[in-house]
Amino acid sequence: MPPILTLLTDFGYRDWYVAAVKGVILSRVPHATIVDIAHEVPPGDVEAAAFLLGAAARSFPPGTVHLAVVDPGVGSARRMLAVETPAAGGPSFFLAPDNGLLEPFFAAARIVSIERRDLFLDNPGNTFHGRDRFAPAAAFLLSGGHFDQLGPAVDDPVRLEVPPPLRSATRLSCRVAHVDRYGNLVTDLPSGWLPTDTAFRVTLGDAENTARRVGCYAELAPGEVGLLDGSLGTIELSLRGASLAEAWGVGRGDRIEIELELK
Amino acid sequence: MPPILTLLTDFGYRDWYVAAVKGVILSRVPHATIVDIAHEVPPGDVEAAAFLLGAAARSFPPGTVHLAVVDPGVGSARRMLAVETPAAGGPSFFLAPDNGLLEPFFAAARIVSIERRDLFLDNPGNTFHGRDRFAPAAAFLLSGGHFDQLGPAVDDPVRLEVPPPLRSATRLSCRVAHVDRYGNLVTDLPSGWLPTDTAFRVTLGDAENTARRVGCYAELAPGEVGLLDGSLGTIELSLRGASLAEAWGVGRGDRIEIELELK
Amino acid sequence: MPPILTLLTDFGYRDWYVAAVKGVILSRVPHATIVDIAHEVPPGDVEAAAFLLGAAARSFPPGTVHLAVVDPGVGSARRMLAVETPAAGGPSFFLAPDNGLLEPFFAAARIVSIERRDLFLDNPGNTFHGRDRFAPAAAFLLSGGHFDQLGPAVDDPVRLEVPPPLRSATRLSCRVAHVDRYGNLVTDLPSGWLPTDTAFRVTLGDAENTARRVGCYAELAPGEVGLLDGSLGTIELSLRGASLAEAWGVGRGDRIEIELELK
Repeated sequence: MPPILTLLTDFGYRDWYVAAVKGVILSRVPHATIVDIAHEVPPGDVEAAAFLLGAAARSFPPGTVHLAVVDPGVGSARRMLAVETPAAGGPSFFLAPDNGLLEPFFAAARIVSIERRDLFLDNPGNTFHGRDRFAPAAAFLLSGGHFDQLGPAVDDPVRLEVPPPLRSATRLSCRVAHVDRYGNLVTDLPSGWLPTDTAFRVTLGDAENTARRVGCYAELAPGEVGLLDGSLGTIELSLRGASLAEAWGVGRGDRIEIELELK
Repeated sequence: MPPILTLLTDFGYRDWYVAAVKGVILSRVPHATIVDIAHEVPPGDVEAAAFLLGAAARSFPPGTVHLAVVDPGVGSARRMLAVETPAAGGPSFFLAPDNGLLEPFFAAARIVSIERRDLFLDNPGNTFHGRDRFAPAAAFLLSGGHFDQLGPAVDDPVRLEVPPPLRSATRLSCRVAHVDRYGNLVTDLPSGWLPTDTAFRVTLGDAENTARRVGCYAELAPGEVGLLDGSLGTIELSLRGASLAEAWGVGRGDRIEIELELK
Repeated sequence: MPPILTLLTDFGYRDWYVAAVKGVILSRVPHATIVDIAHEVPPGDVEAAAFLLGAAARSFPPGTVHLAVVDPGVGSARRMLAVETPAAGGPSFFLAPDNGLLEPFFAAARIVSIERRDLFLDNPGNTFHGRDRFAPAAAFLLSGGHFDQLGPAVDDPVRLEVPPPLRSATRLSCRVAHVDRYGNLVTDLPSGWLPTDTAFRVTLGDAENTARRVGCYAELAPGEVGLLDGSLGTIELSLRGASLAEAWGVGRGDRIEIELELK
């Protein structure tokens, strides 16, 4: 069974950076299977990367090594972390700079600081640790190296502070965790918090709108806004046939209030 | 020989959707080779997806499983189809929603409705059947599962109605089937319908232009428009050094008339 | 150990072109590992492709076959080249049109003209040699075919003329070799030419700016411009937190002067 590496970066698609990381991996683990998660994370946007990695990783099998490089502090004293998450079937592994990117995986995880300089590549400069340090560390795990041998344990990783969703008897408050390509708003509101089969008043800043709880996009009339059970277990808001993010002028991090008194 | 899966979607490159599908495939078929066809199909544009899949699939070996997800009806009662196309060397397989996406492959094919709920993933929501239903069905075929066991036969798939190219003694009429990255217009006009070695009057709406039949782009002078034998066996129109689609304001679906009285 | 093919083109991500090339490769070498370097090279921009290939290739293991198709002359009399570069551990291979794209690899290399028509695919048209000629030639090398059997030796490849960096006692002159996704300016100035630990006056056209020599991006204050040892052994200019290319209005090919009299 070939070992799997996933790759998530803000390197984009116009440079040679992603390919260089893959070249280093394949130089050391020729039979690895490499899967891109995304490379168009906005430059330096650690929170966007954390969300995408949390969303994607759950679909990969145990033993997968996930390498995520959004690293504006590259070359500084910031640590490089490796995280081992327990799971039925065996642990998975996550590597990233110590900047909060691995926030979704800290619970119940073991964390070390990657300090195996003997693994690192002696390439010029201090601008590309994805190629020179993270890739060799990932290759070490992919070829069966022991997690504990990557470096000393860490108990104070940099955390990503994100305000949680809130509920009262009459109101829910949640956050736009992600805007997808279709302009759907993926929130952090657990789907189970929202009653089914009715319409709600949705407040966004000063604007009030109505959205109907539906089971799938196709139940919406053109131009209608729906509240759906999204694919991550949270509520998603969607506008039939167009981008809701554009229509409402919403971005990641905006808060949405949902009034529970039924209309 | 590792089984090959191709993937064509309108998921884009900024979300985790493509990676999640791949994770499910690799969880079940670790040695699969996965090839992206394209993921920037305009959201919901079934016709664009059908064209790209028809164009790409002919370069893949028998036995390839092609998974195409452009699925605005996800979660509704729309069926999910699997198609088996006969070929020298063995059949290939195509999976997509029943919305016309598989139109290029219906001739001589066997079609079933994918209804193996035992294969499906029990993930939240009804918005991501690419991950939860199509990927497991594709994995079933990739690991040697029998096509017929995916579900009951279908003889009334949703069809994509596209007006065919037309010819008379003095005039050809064709359709822009695709605009490529260079701004070339890929038409549905069989290359054999157009005489060689001369210039033609080309009409597009009210505008008249002249285009010369050439063998390759480099035979054109800068700013000149050429008619070429394209790589799919149909005529392609190209402007040397710039986008013809932009210069003429043309998009997919526009009709082009070619006057056969030689200039 | 599966053979590795890298792929660099100006095909973009919206067409079926990249997938068709991969399909041909996998039809002939099912166990190949294919790695994308980049496909968003500006259409026809041979120099951009040459830079990216030179930058990426050094991270791949010996034996890798690199296929690069930026080919505005496709179908004309232009030759198709294969290049074998010697290296510790064994040679690597590069295939591209004879238009200067392989400039970074000519030194000490062997060069042949690919003329094995028996390998080529008999597909329609003369617009897609990436699929019909280059891919089969690459597959030939990937499956162990002998380099010399691709065609006759070439000693006059088309060269890419790029003015070199210059130095005097008081001034360095270099060229923007690449603008990356972050808006960093990757130059061709060897890092060793520039003294460390001080600030320099940087001239770009008529504009004068000051830039400080730093070890990593994080040492810069927001809005400050830095001169760094880049990951290719050359100097890189970077603006903290924004695109320097946009801020200065710089593009590839622009010259930058650096005054060595310390400020």
